[in-house]
Amino acid sequence: MSMRTSVDFIETDRLDTADRGLGYGDGLFETLRVVGDVVPLWPRHAERLRMSAARLGLPEPDTDAMLAEVRRLGGDLDDAVARITFTAGIGPRGYARPGVASPTTVIGVGPLSLAADAYREGIALRLCDTRLGDQPLLAGMKHLNRLEQVLARSEWDDARWQEGLMADLQGHIVCATAANLFAVREGRLVTPPVDRCGVAGVARAEILATGEVAIEPVSMQMLLEADEVFLTSAVRGILAVRAFAGRTWQPGPVTRHWQAHWCGIGLPLPFRSKDSD
Amino acid sequence: MSMRTSVDFIETDRLDTADRGLGYGDGLFETLRVVGDVVPLWPRHAERLRMSAARLGLPEPDTDAMLAEVRRLGGDLDDAVARITFTAGIGPRGYARPGVASPTTVIGVGPLSLAADAYREGIALRLCDTRLGDQPLLAGMKHLNRLEQVLARSEWDDARWQEGLMADLQGHIVCATAANLFAVREGRLVTPPVDRCGVAGVARAEILATGEVAIEPVSMQMLLEADEVFLTSAVRGILAVRAFAGRTWQPGPVTRHWQAHWCGIGLPLPFRSKDSD
Repeated sequence: MSMRTSVDFIETDRLDTADRGLGYGDGLFETLRVVGDVVPLWPRHAERLRMSAARLGLPEPDTDAMLAEVRRLGGDLDDAVARITFTAGIGPRGYARPGVASPTTVIGVGPLSLAADAYREGIALRLCDTRLGDQPLLAGMKHLNRLEQVLARSEWDDARWQEGLMADLQGHIVCATAANLFAVREGRLVTPPVDRCGVAGVARAEILATGEVAIEPVSMQMLLEADEVFLTSAVRGILAVRAFAGRTWQPGPVTRHWQAHWCGIGLPLPFRSKDSD
Repeated sequence: MSMRTSVDFIETDRLDTADRGLGYGDGLFETLRVVGDVVPLWPRHAERLRMSAARLGLPEPDTDAMLAEVRRLGGDLDDAVARITFTAGIGPRGYARPGVASPTTVIGVGPLSLAADAYREGIALRLCDTRLGDQPLLAGMKHLNRLEQVLARSEWDDARWQEGLMADLQGHIVCATAANLFAVREGRLVTPPVDRCGVAGVARAEILATGEVAIEPVSMQMLLEADEVFLTSAVRGILAVRAFAGRTWQPGPVTRHWQAHWCGIGLPLPFRSKDSD
């Protein structure tokens, strides 16, 4: 089954070529997991979209209408992934936005299947050569300017690695191409800041809001000395890291705790360990 | 009269919403001036497009077909502006590009009119608060990730300023939102490097190839002490700067020389000074 798509709440997969989303990446997106007709992390998605639209000077998105459209397009899918794209709308050529903003909302929903072994055993990561640039003005947002992630992801097409970690220009490890990073060391849970580059993921926000987490720079050495490493994603949930840069780990108790938390908030993972029940 | 547009060489203004140009800004563009059915700077546009496609790992663009399409859509316009957008094409959700790349080419052509007084007297610039981030991997290319320029251009809607200059994170002045910057001081022509941020414009390339230019960082102070300042753009040509940050200038001989050069290569400006003939 393929995606069902709408543009401005009318079912179609065609967009005006004059849309500023295409022209300049002038917009935002959210990628969400829909379980039945519930989007458990929706308040966090809606919050990020509203905050980011304000930062970019876009009109306020109608997040209620978006959620209703996600549910409508999802139909009777049990487990689905939805993408909401919110752009500055159609405009004339040139960087200047039109005086009266009329944003475009593109929503697509399709089925989701998660591979059980990634949760049972964890995933293997590579270190990307592509570094994240330094731009505080855009950092944290899930905007449409994603060439860094595209270039990083295009570095490998080998099934050995399920994700790639990206460093900033100073060499700190910030995130994966499409997930945030957490490490556990001596009982402390740490995630890198995303105020100069990277995306402030909603799964990351869920953990920050409900757990004790230190936000601090993560060096390569800290990562290799960590007791546990895991990735977070609104769609894929909590993924233990089992191998990176020559080190290997077993999924540990903190990772299992957050996997159990995920199930608890209505985002079942295709694997549940004994100690997460 | 509005734009005539084609997608993959078929006349339409509709694009698939699954295009990676919209999804991730995964692509490039060129904006060119078409005089009659000639694009005087075409070899430089085609060269930049080919080089940038290689840097991004995109397929090689068919630049001959693109030029033919620009001419076809331009029809009998005397003076036109064309935009060529070249994206990674349609793909499934996610940063990974599809195994077999099938790029999308969107071309739009519309009439161009240039305001004579901008050339006769020069233009006034403001300094944008929006800084250019630091990302050597993407610098120089005219890719579709243009939120920095959009944010900078959205800082003003006052007709007092025709352009805004942008500094990098170190405070060096790099370029305008949609033009490159040149300054003349004690007979030396200088333009800032664009290897960490900014776009390597084709008009800039024309001057670098045919004149004596030093590529070096330009500080605010250097700019304010310059004898002449001008902007370059493939569409707008050579624009004298008459006011910036409290300083004013008269269009000087170096600016007039390059305006005359522009006319000489087939890009007439709507004003010709006595000393440029």
